[in-house]
Amino acid sequence: MKRILITGASGFIGRHVVASLADQGYEIHAVDLRRGPSAANVIWHETNLLDTKQVSDLFRTILPTHLLHFAWYAEHGKFWSSPLNLDWVAASIGLFKSFAEAGGRRAVFAGSCAEYDWAGSEPLVEDKTPCEPGSLYGGCKNATRQVVQSYASQAGVSVAWGRIFFLYGPDENPNRLIPSILRPMLEGKPGYCRSGDHVRDLLHVYDVAFAFVALLQSEVKGPVNIGSGDRITLGEVSRRVARIVVREDLLTVDRQPPTPENPAVILADVNRLRREVGWKPRYDLTSGLEQVVASMGHPPTLK
Amino acid sequence: MKRILITGASGFIGRHVVASLADQGYEIHAVDLRRGPSAANVIWHETNLLDTKQVSDLFRTILPTHLLHFAWYAEHGKFWSSPLNLDWVAASIGLFKSFAEAGGRRAVFAGSCAEYDWAGSEPLVEDKTPCEPGSLYGGCKNATRQVVQSYASQAGVSVAWGRIFFLYGPDENPNRLIPSILRPMLEGKPGYCRSGDHVRDLLHVYDVAFAFVALLQSEVKGPVNIGSGDRITLGEVSRRVARIVVREDLLTVDRQPPTPENPAVILADVNRLRREVGWKPRYDLTSGLEQVVASMGHPPTLK
Repeated sequence: MKRILITGASGFIGRHVVASLADQGYEIHAVDLRRGPSAANVIWHETNLLDTKQVSDLFRTILPTHLLHFAWYAEHGKFWSSPLNLDWVAASIGLFKSFAEAGGRRAVFAGSCAEYDWAGSEPLVEDKTPCEPGSLYGGCKNATRQVVQSYASQAGVSVAWGRIFFLYGPDENPNRLIPSILRPMLEGKPGYCRSGDHVRDLLHVYDVAFAFVALLQSEVKGPVNIGSGDRITLGEVSRRVARIVVREDLLTVDRQPPTPENPAVILADVNRLRREVGWKPRYDLTSGLEQVVASMGHPPTLK
Repeated sequence: MKRILITGASGFIGRHVVASLADQGYEIHAVDLRRGPSAANVIWHETNLLDTKQVSDLFRTILPTHLLHFAWYAEHGKFWSSPLNLDWVAASIGLFKSFAEAGGRRAVFAGSCAEYDWAGSEPLVEDKTPCEPGSLYGGCKNATRQVVQSYASQAGVSVAWGRIFFLYGPDENPNRLIPSILRPMLEGKPGYCRSGDHVRDLLHVYDVAFAFVALLQSEVKGPVNIGSGDRITLGEVSRRVARIVVREDLLTVDRQPPTPENPAVILADVNRLRREVGWKPRYDLTSGLEQVVASMGHPPTLK
């Protein structure tokens, strides 16, 4: 029996990973501060991962063979520079050590496109683009990766590191781009896209979750970009949202000069994900956005 | 009053730093598992730095303005790959956060030449040679640096990171090169130098301590190599040791092919240390070795 421990299991990505793994032959140990929905094969653990004692007890009790680590400080707007990032480096390293000591064999971590140097050429390639993070968040993710990867082989653990790009989906934080445009337009109020000319790599959160499951079940090691590989401007994303709800009249798309924190282009090279992991997205952007609109109770027939 | 907290204060480098700072106008808080010698202005704290509660209490009580962080797992032969390196990443990051929260202003950390990629060109230059550590120890030091440097400016702390190369001096671990040759020869037994053709950068531990004090008192930020800048083979080092004790007859110098863990050359570029910090060594290698021999009770007149 494969026993998997999933951290951040109630979170924006984690909850879909738990659902996706439920019928794949795992005994699932879902860990978060708050329990998510009950399901067959899923055992919930309300654990504070910043408490080293709770973490080592958890791993010693469960003895998981597999690990998916999503938990991190993620409060919108604050996570880029919060000192709590430092606590999550320490917690993630300690957690990985506990996993290895408990005999764990395969681990996949949630990394970030923020580990890359954003000032160089695009797309961002795992083994080519330098990791020179411009943010505390990116620096902390990258440092965690370095420790985990340095320790992995001697600890006998196969480790992959999924670098998440930009994601969207149902129940997103209302301050993020798509809900911040969609919600007012659904109420007949103006929608505003600030950096309409910036190119980003967007992936539906279901696909992000599926990609992590595929990565877990592959034998690929090291960093893997979790993205769509598709270039799209945030202005075009906003226009598609407006089109779906038939309120293009309410949308204003603005332009902003690029900054180091908000560069003109952030795009994933997805060759490793496509060729080595053998995974591709189920949602294209339009069907993904339609799904989001539907999840907000907006009748799709309006379109 | 400047209040400095020194970790690893009883250690091979730390004890000399404490002595060197004692008449420099600091209130010195020396932290280690075991107390070192009493001295004016020095307050000892027997603290386990792997205990997060003890660390946060320590910083909240002392409110140090300055920090010198030497403590790390350093057992000869084992430190390169010990899982305890992971604990010291977490401890060092937590300690730095506590220092910042307590209003600390200037911190210097003990880094290592093991942070660099040893497969490239020599000498190793702070802002030029890539940091691609080949060991768990180097990976963990480098990851700690990345987190500390990412957090420093927003935390209002000026941080320098002294990368230690190869050091020697009185009371070295008997298994390290110089005592491993010197001790048998002083007893009339054969001395054996294994990798006689390998070039290293050696600095006397007193000079390493003085360099850290100079770095602390400078305004230099970021990584600074703590080395001599001098090329010398380990065979030549061994021959000088043998010459000082007049037992060249007992010395065998062997040769080994270089490996990734033991490359042909590890040499510091010391331009930052010389020009920006404005420091240079007091000991040349021969006088440093004579001092080591003298510290072992060997009469220097024998020479």
